[in-house]
Amino acid sequence: MTTTVITHIAGLVTNDPALGEGPLGLIEDAALVLDGETVAWAGPASRAPDADHRVDAGGRAVLPGFVDSHSHLVFAGDRTAEFNARMSGQPYKAGGIRTTVAATRAASDAELSANVARHLREALRQGTTTFETKSGYGLTVEDEARALRIAAEHTDEVTYLGAHIVAPEHADDPAAYVDLVTGPMLDACAPHARWIDVFCEKGAFDGDQARAILTAGKAKGLLPRIHANQLSYGPGVQLAVELDAASADHCTHLTDADVDALASGNTVATLLPGAEFSTRAPWPDARRLLDAGVTVALSTDCNPGSSFTSSVPFCVALAVRDMGMTPDEAVWSATAGGAAALRRTDVGRLAPGARADLTVLDAPSHVHLAYRPGVPLVTEVWRRGVRVV
Amino acid sequence: MTTTVITHIAGLVTNDPALGEGPLGLIEDAALVLDGETVAWAGPASRAPDADHRVDAGGRAVLPGFVDSHSHLVFAGDRTAEFNARMSGQPYKAGGIRTTVAATRAASDAELSANVARHLREALRQGTTTFETKSGYGLTVEDEARALRIAAEHTDEVTYLGAHIVAPEHADDPAAYVDLVTGPMLDACAPHARWIDVFCEKGAFDGDQARAILTAGKAKGLLPRIHANQLSYGPGVQLAVELDAASADHCTHLTDADVDALASGNTVATLLPGAEFSTRAPWPDARRLLDAGVTVALSTDCNPGSSFTSSVPFCVALAVRDMGMTPDEAVWSATAGGAAALRRTDVGRLAPGARADLTVLDAPSHVHLAYRPGVPLVTEVWRRGVRVV
Ligand SMILES: [Zn+2]
Ligand SMILES: [Zn+2]
Repeated sequence: MTTTVITHIAGLVTNDPALGEGPLGLIEDAALVLDGETVAWAGPASRAPDADHRVDAGGRAVLPGFVDSHSHLVFAGDRTAEFNARMSGQPYKAGGIRTTVAATRAASDAELSANVARHLREALRQGTTTFETKSGYGLTVEDEARALRIAAEHTDEVTYLGAHIVAPEHADDPAAYVDLVTGPMLDACAPHARWIDVFCEKGAFDGDQARAILTAGKAKGLLPRIHANQLSYGPGVQLAVELDAASADHCTHLTDADVDALASGNTVATLLPGAEFSTRAPWPDARRLLDAGVTVALSTDCNPGSSFTSSVPFCVALAVRDMGMTPDEAVWSATAGGAAALRRTDVGRLAPGARADLTVLDAPSHVHLAYRPGVPLVTEVWRRGVRVV
Repeated sequence: MTTTVITHIAGLVTNDPALGEGPLGLIEDAALVLDGETVAWAGPASRAPDADHRVDAGGRAVLPGFVDSHSHLVFAGDRTAEFNARMSGQPYKAGGIRTTVAATRAASDAELSANVARHLREALRQGTTTFETKSGYGLTVEDEARALRIAAEHTDEVTYLGAHIVAPEHADDPAAYVDLVTGPMLDACAPHARWIDVFCEKGAFDGDQARAILTAGKAKGLLPRIHANQLSYGPGVQLAVELDAASADHCTHLTDADVDALASGNTVATLLPGAEFSTRAPWPDARRLLDAGVTVALSTDCNPGSSFTSSVPFCVALAVRDMGMTPDEAVWSATAGGAAALRRTDVGRLAPGARADLTVLDAPSHVHLAYRPGVPLVTEVWRRGVRVV
């Protein structure tokens, strides 16, 4: 294995409190040693060991690559006109998710795969080195399995979301659709996915349906996560904790009992401010969750309907401006928090043994992700020890 | 002169209603012909004339380069800790503008010039092809004149803002500072600037002081613009119209009389949502201004204290989300609106005779600037007919 030392790092976020200051394990004037695909050493530049190669970070900030634990990238079609009409207050007969379902079913494998690749490349350029993505725009046995096969070409974190909405052809008989999702569709999809997810919301799936779907998935070896409490109060968050889901995603409308449940369990609250931004909805209250001791992740929810951003830095800036997070907390949530939401310990931190996935900012501090909103600060990205951007 | 035809443009924003649809003069499936530094022709691709060179835009959107009519880039020093403390609710003895004044005075010419160049390059990569920038962190005759000389190395749109705050050494005698600003400092600065500006606000300069300062500047051939009604109601906006200022900037707190004055005059209302974003302040109401018939510009206010973004696309997304603008209006304001705020007709549009300053998005429509917030969509920038990004 060749080793590389990156020196002259103005601020290194390790997310290991044993290595530096605070929960970020921040080291100023730092160096980082990579051994092949792995971090071998992190500490003050003055004590850095020798290595085969030497890279000068030029006084920039280095942090773990972002872990985007929630996206919907296996889709086709264009919903620009729907967005434009919504933001312009114009009437528009929007088909919502159904519009994307129709376009996705009609698309070729190659088209869908190219779309995933394009958005993942775009995310990578913005510092995201681990991404989850979902099915949910197929809603037939064949189209859901296809979406997961295509997703799995691009990432290990693949989620079966047959229960995104009730498929249009089952609109009159939701129970039959749940039987499909928990039966033949699950059988076809489980081999291609790590996770199972359900959109638990009025108009989608209620608490009992969500429990049935996630329980069936667990029985097939899939791990649960839930779209919960996005548009209204509901049973999703407490169900997530009950089923030991890795994450309850959105968490915009929470009762005190919901917050207490999250604080007492192992379920991460994943906040997705891109969705609130692009639908002009009220913000989730990150401060309340953090003060209660809940683990919070920040992700993009990248999808063509409600949140068509692939930018984790943008979500960090929103979380600081509008959700009561400090810059440190937001950066932690977008890295270590995302990793926790995927039950991963190999990513989201830059401590010895972790994967050498890292982002270099054209700025001296991670704080600039909030201080300089909208500015494309990510100047280098390394994945598994190799510079890829 | 060599000519270039850019074809295969999915959506071309010309800002000339005679050339296309609506106020944006939008042409779908368009081509654009450049003749040296100038636009020679814009229209449907099927009718494009021949040219010496041919460029395929690949189905992307093309729009006029952004015109950022308000920034403060001649500065030195670091206020990251102040921002971090403010957003984290931590106590911090912030010196505000004075912190930057001290650092700017202490910096070398080379350091200041490099800082301007770095931020202008960053703005250019985000599609900004015309930028105004100001003095205002010197506040002595020598330091203000130096700031303007340095600004003028980088742009033609240079603004004398000796009246940013009362200089610390004149804190006990603001009248004496106004005499300096309108006397020896103006004499030293006028040769290097096109514009004169004043921060008309409680704690800075009142209406009478602002009138005296702008009137003195006009007498020396400078054109007026004003920081008006940012933090509170005040006389700035109506003074701007009274003096036929090119722009009243911020316009966050407006009475009906202020809106009426703007609607009846030739003064543009320049909105700067980056400042509201980074100080958690209430948003200016663009909708109210537009409905009253006011010309609205959108700019960054890029400065290290209250709005450290150089991203016009970010400001467009905020304007749509939080200020009641449609995507079309926001894009117009960030291009033609900025040009109007600088009393320019050669930039901010892509019609025959205009400067060939243009931005290519990695997206089929200008709407994506709002639809895909935070995503660095600008993929090519041309200035005076030459591709520079
Ligand atoms: Zn989602
Ligand atoms: Zn300003």
